[in-house]
Amino acid sequence: MSSSLLKEPREIDEIVYRFLEISDFEKGFSECLQQLTEAKFTKSQFIDRYSELKKQPDTYFIVVAEDLKKKKIIACGTLFVEKKFIRNCGTCGHIEDIVVDKTYRGKNLGLRIIEQLTHIGKKLGCYKLILDCSDSNVKFYEKCLFEKKGVQMSLYLPMSKL
Amino acid sequence: MSSSLLKEPREIDEIVYRFLEISDFEKGFSECLQQLTEAKFTKSQFIDRYSELKKQPDTYFIVVAEDLKKKKIIACGTLFVEKKFIRNCGTCGHIEDIVVDKTYRGKNLGLRIIEQLTHIGKKLGCYKLILDCSDSNVKFYEKCLFEKKGVQMSLYLPMSKL
Repeated sequence: MSSSLLKEPREIDEIVYRFLEISDFEKGFSECLQQLTEAKFTKSQFIDRYSELKKQPDTYFIVVAEDLKKKKIIACGTLFVEKKFIRNCGTCGHIEDIVVDKTYRGKNLGLRIIEQLTHIGKKLGCYKLILDCSDSNVKFYEKCLFEKKGVQMSLYLPMSKL
Repeated sequence: MSSSLLKEPREIDEIVYRFLEISDFEKGFSECLQQLTEAKFTKSQFIDRYSELKKQPDTYFIVVAEDLKKKKIIACGTLFVEKKFIRNCGTCGHIEDIVVDKTYRGKNLGLRIIEQLTHIGKKLGCYKLILDCSDSNVKFYEKCLFEKKGVQMSLYLPMSKL
């Protein structure tokens, strides 16, 4: 993941926007994600998953915001890039797992993360970006220039690994 | 993609359910997808994309239904598997690009494709499967055991590859 994919300015008010790094485990990446949903993992699990994602560098783009003074991850979001056959063998970017630390809300950090992911998607040549959200977040994403498209449906599975 | 991931029976009424193969270009894979959206591509583009997806064998699972008499692809669907940090570094399956040839509708082929993709997702240990659809398709996916979860939002981009 080249940092040239990121949108300037990457540093505002002592907050830097950059790609996830392996040292972010110590900077509270897990604690940030836990404000979205269950996201506890050990350092070893983090390193294994991080290494797996690194092997698919054109698929996973995880942007974090760090408070440089506190050396703390205060927001993050993922662009997960799908290679399709439709749309002239086009690519579609899926925006996933957007979260802003609760003590930093109201400062447009979520908007900045989405701007970064959108910028990356454009640079990669994605023909569209999609995301799923709750009704209560529709207005936020409209501010990020997204439009309502359809219905998200889900099926929770018993985990039965091979 | 091991065919052992597929759900039995894979062959019913001279229709076989299996993973996409490189010979499916000649069997009308593009023509099938075109009934969903713009999906024209040359044989060379198909082979290039197919080869790219093969390099990510734990990410892309494309199931097709073939009419064995006609040697024709009559339905297809994709499971696109995302490795996350949340949910104990869990995996989420995205169901994409489901289409059934219009002359074969009403025969439960769409249901069979979703059953195959769900079965694969279970075998892979996905904690959930998600998909986006129009309001008019909600009832179909409810029959496939999916539930309404949220709102899908999209942003169409000008394609500006690096």
